[in-house]
Order: sequence, then structure tokens, then C-alpha cells
Amino acid sequence: MHLTLIGIGTGNPEHLTLQAIRALNAQDLILIPRKGEGKADLAELRRAICEDVLTAKTTRIVEFDLPVRDEATTAYRQRVDDWHDAIAESWQQALAPHPEATRVALLVWGDPSLYDSTLRIAARLDPAPTLEVIPGITSMQALTAAHAIPVNTIGGPFLVTTGRQLRENGWPEGVETLVVMLDSGGAFETVAADGVHIWWGAYVGMAEQITCEGPLVEIGKEIIALRAKARAQHGWIMDIYILRKTP
Amino acid sequence: MHLTLIGIGTGNPEHLTLQAIRALNAQDLILIPRKGEGKADLAELRRAICEDVLTAKTTRIVEFDLPVRDEATTAYRQRVDDWHDAIAESWQQALAPHPEATRVALLVWGDPSLYDSTLRIAARLDPAPTLEVIPGITSMQALTAAHAIPVNTIGGPFLVTTGRQLRENGWPEGVETLVVMLDSGGAFETVAADGVHIWWGAYVGMAEQITCEGPLVEIGKEIIALRAKARAQHGWIMDIYILRKTP
Ligand SMILES: C[S@@+](CC[C@H](N)C(=O)[O-])C[C@H]1O[C@@H](n2cnc3c(N)ncnc32)[C@H](O)[C@@H]1O
Ligand SMILES: C[S@@+](CC[C@H](N)C(=O)[O-])C[C@H]1O[C@@H](n2cnc3c(N)ncnc32)[C@H](O)[C@@H]1O
Repeated sequence: MHLTLIGIGTGNPEHLTLQAIRALNAQDLILIPRKGEGKADLAELRRAICEDVLTAKTTRIVEFDLPVRDEATTAYRQRVDDWHDAIAESWQQALAPHPEATRVALLVWGDPSLYDSTLRIAARLDPAPTLEVIPGITSMQALTAAHAIPVNTIGGPFLVTTGRQLRENGWPEGVETLVVMLDSGGAFETVAADGVHIWWGAYVGMAEQITCEGPLVEIGKEIIALRAKARAQHGWIMDIYILRKTP
Repeated sequence: MHLTLIGIGTGNPEHLTLQAIRALNAQDLILIPRKGEGKADLAELRRAICEDVLTAKTTRIVEFDLPVRDEATTAYRQRVDDWHDAIAESWQQALAPHPEATRVALLVWGDPSLYDSTLRIAARLDPAPTLEVIPGITSMQALTAAHAIPVNTIGGPFLVTTGRQLRENGWPEGVETLVVMLDSGGAFETVAADGVHIWWGAYVGMAEQITCEGPLVEIGKEIIALRAKARAQHGWIMDIYILRKTP
């Protein structure tokens, strides 16, 4: 089996690259995961993308239910590992009725390299497929585009990290710019806000996009409120932000 | 004037997104910089992209010569600032004969947010244009796609930095994964190689793509040699790599 992981961007169907469209049309089978109710929008977006750009009549679309993560397993790493095993198992079950499908693809949110488990799940398949990755627009880029800003200062480094890391380990020593993803909500409230600027965005690239930027001391609370409201309204949220210490 | 900065990806014309193609076709005028001889491939790629995807008959393409950076100015920051001023000036000169062009675009290599000066140059224009940014595939993503790897460990942060930073300041404290860009050559030789893995790529996403990965102690020298050879062969090189400390 040849497995292609296709980055689809972060919700704007026009984030698709020509390479992604070509790859989609070269498949025998495209696997689409069904997630829980709250996140329905994302499975629908995958379906809509396939409908829009698939011109090859021979590509079959197969949906499958994603297993749920066992929140009872307390060790974070173990919980993630078990979950990846279970997903690999569910791919194999979904593929079993289609032994003729030698070219199989998965549509990956954003870019397959960035905080995404699809590559790690693919590594569990037995027999091992040959692997191909098609890059996609990330939420980092959708955020910086929405604000029309560079992510780095001139020649300056930046750290890409998670809400969990920021909460648990604080602002990393010696770093000026942070990009924070996978935040369950307001990890920026745990850092010393003085002299910090924030560029925040939710649903970036999507029709629902909301953005907000300013000194963290002034707009931190406002973002917390915006986020809670948007989450209640849509039933789910994905947000990302850049924090920079201004000298 | 409405100025659109359009990310075009890193050399593969199929990195173009549907959004970029739509934006290109919505312009009155597209500015294409001509760089020095050695980098001719990049201006040609921009021209080829316009030829391939422009269906709007009304879009005018205007080329202009990029000013050269004054290497005599010794202070790095000042040299960069002066250069950006000079480029903004050359944009205004190129646009002066076309006052009817209200929608103007520049094609930006990779993504406009990542180690690119176009946004900073745009901020120098007077009168200030309204600004729009279309994200593009970065060289980071082209590198990880070429190696079919994630950039982060599970839930782990990564620092994106430059060859200059790595040379001058060494491996930053507490960071496991580095993405190094803008390296004039082999800055990885200045770090303690023991226990470090490297994923390297030059011309990633392009027909000329070369990649190499392995323990830094084993393949560092090989990469230096590969890089010198490729550079001599093509007359220019762009390379990028990921370094990870393996425990
Ligand atoms: C599992 S990671 C996947 C990242 C994805 N692979 C990418 O390239 O952006 C999910 C996180 O990405 C960010 N994210 C993804 N899409 C987003 C969007 N449209 N708006 C805001 N944040 C987004 C959020 O921080 C979210 O918690
Ligand atoms: C001025 S920066 C521009 C980066 C660009 N905006 C991006 O999104 O990738 C140029 C640096 O990007 C990296 N780069 C850009 N294109 C590349 C390619 N096709 N292959 C390898 N490295 C590349 C190299 O590190 C190079 O020194």
C-alpha cells in the first residue's frame, strides 16, 4: 500500500494546493474519520473538499469512526500511545473490505508535520506502507496572514509550543517570541503579562474567523470572554496565538 | 492602493494554493523583483507561475531590479534597515508609471510571515496601502514533507532559528528540537554533535531537491560536501534542517 497524507490547510477550502488536488485525484481510496458531534464541521469540511476537487471517478471515499481517547489512563504519554494504537487498528478495519485499494490517502488538518498524529499512526501499520506527505497551510500561517504580521523579529528565533507546556513550565528562558497551539483555554493567563503583546485568532482561515491583538495586560480578559462565547456558540473552538516580549 | 502579499511556496509550482491563484487573478499589477545572476531561477519561477495561472487578461506584470545590500554598512541591523528602505523606494519607482493600478501584488517565497522582509518593506510605503496576506507553504513544511516526519516530538516545543543565531549563541538552553534556516553553511558544525540527529534538505520541493538524514556525528561532513557540490553545480543554494537531541 502507498499511503499519502495530504495537508488540507486549516478550514479554508482554498488553502488546498495544486499538489494536494493532484494527489487526491490519484487515490484509490480516501479515508475520512468521523469525530464526535461537537467537531462535526471538520468531517463535513473533508467531505466538501473531496466533493469539490475530486474529478477522478475511481476514487472511493470510506468513512470510519475515530476511537475515543481513554481519559481513564492517567499517564499522558501512555494515553496518547494507546489512542494511536486504537486509531491504527480502526484504519486497518476500515481498509480490510478494500484489498484492491493500493493507493490510500488521509486528509490532514493543516500540515501533517505540525502537532498531528497521523504520521505516528501510519508508522504502526503492518505491513508498513510506503509513505508520502503533501504539505499544507498551517494554523500558524493562517494566524499570521489574518494579522498581516511576520512571526519572527528580524533574524530572531521563535518557539512553537503548546498551552500545556506554557502552563507547566512557564515562559521559556531566553525566548522572545512564542507561538502557542493546543491550548485548552487561556494558558497565557499564567505568564507575567507586563510588556507582552498577543496576536490571537480562533477558527483562522475559516468563515467563523475571529482575531484580536494588543498588549496582553489590556486584552487578556477580553480574549478569555471572546473565546468562551465563541465556543458556546459553535460547540467547539480551535485557537492559536503569538506572544512576544517587547523590550 | 491595496497590496496583497501572496505566498507561493518554496519552488514547486504546485505548492500554489487555490487562494493564491484567485488572488493573482484579482490584481491590476504584479511586481516581480529581478535579483542577481546567481538567483535567476527564482525570478524565472515567479514568471512561470504567473504564466501558468493568470487567466485574467487585465493583470500587468512589472519587473524591477532589486537594490543590492550595502555590505559596507557594518552594523547588521542598520544594513538591513537601509536595504529595506531602498527596496521600498524601488517599488515606488516601479509603480509610479502605473497610477491606475490600485490592486498590486508581490509573490513571496514560501510564506510571507517566515524570515521574509516583504511585510516590513510594505510598512515603509507612503501613502500606506491596505494590506492582505495569502499564506504559502514554507520551506519548513517542504522539508518535513520530504522526510515524511513530524517537526515536533509528541506535545514537544521546537525553536525555529537561523544559522547566525546558532553560530553566535550556541544551542539554546532547554530546547530539544531546532529548525535552522538562513544558514550560510554548516552552522551545525559549531554544536556538540553527540546524540544529535539531523534531517537536512536543499532546494526542498524543487526538482533539484536533495535530502539527507542521520546522526550528526556520522553525516555532518557528508552534508558539508553535498552542499558545496550542489552550490557549485547550480550557482546558488537554499538549505534548511532540523536538529534534535535524542536522549
Ligand atoms: C492537533 S493541532 C493540529 C495543527 C495542524 N496540523 C496545523 O498545521 O495547524 C490542533 C491545534 O492547531 C491549532 N489550529 C488548527 N486549526 C486552527 C484554526 N483554524 N484556527 C485556530 N487554531 C487552529 C489550534 O491551536 C489547535 O489546538
Ligand atoms: C529569506 S528565508 C525565506 C523563507 C520563506 N519565507 C519560507 O517560508 O520558507 C530563506 C531561507 O529559507 C530556507 N528555504 C527557502 N526555500 C527553500 C528551499 N526550497 N529549500 C531549502 N531551504 C529553503 C533556507 O533556509 C533559506 O536560507
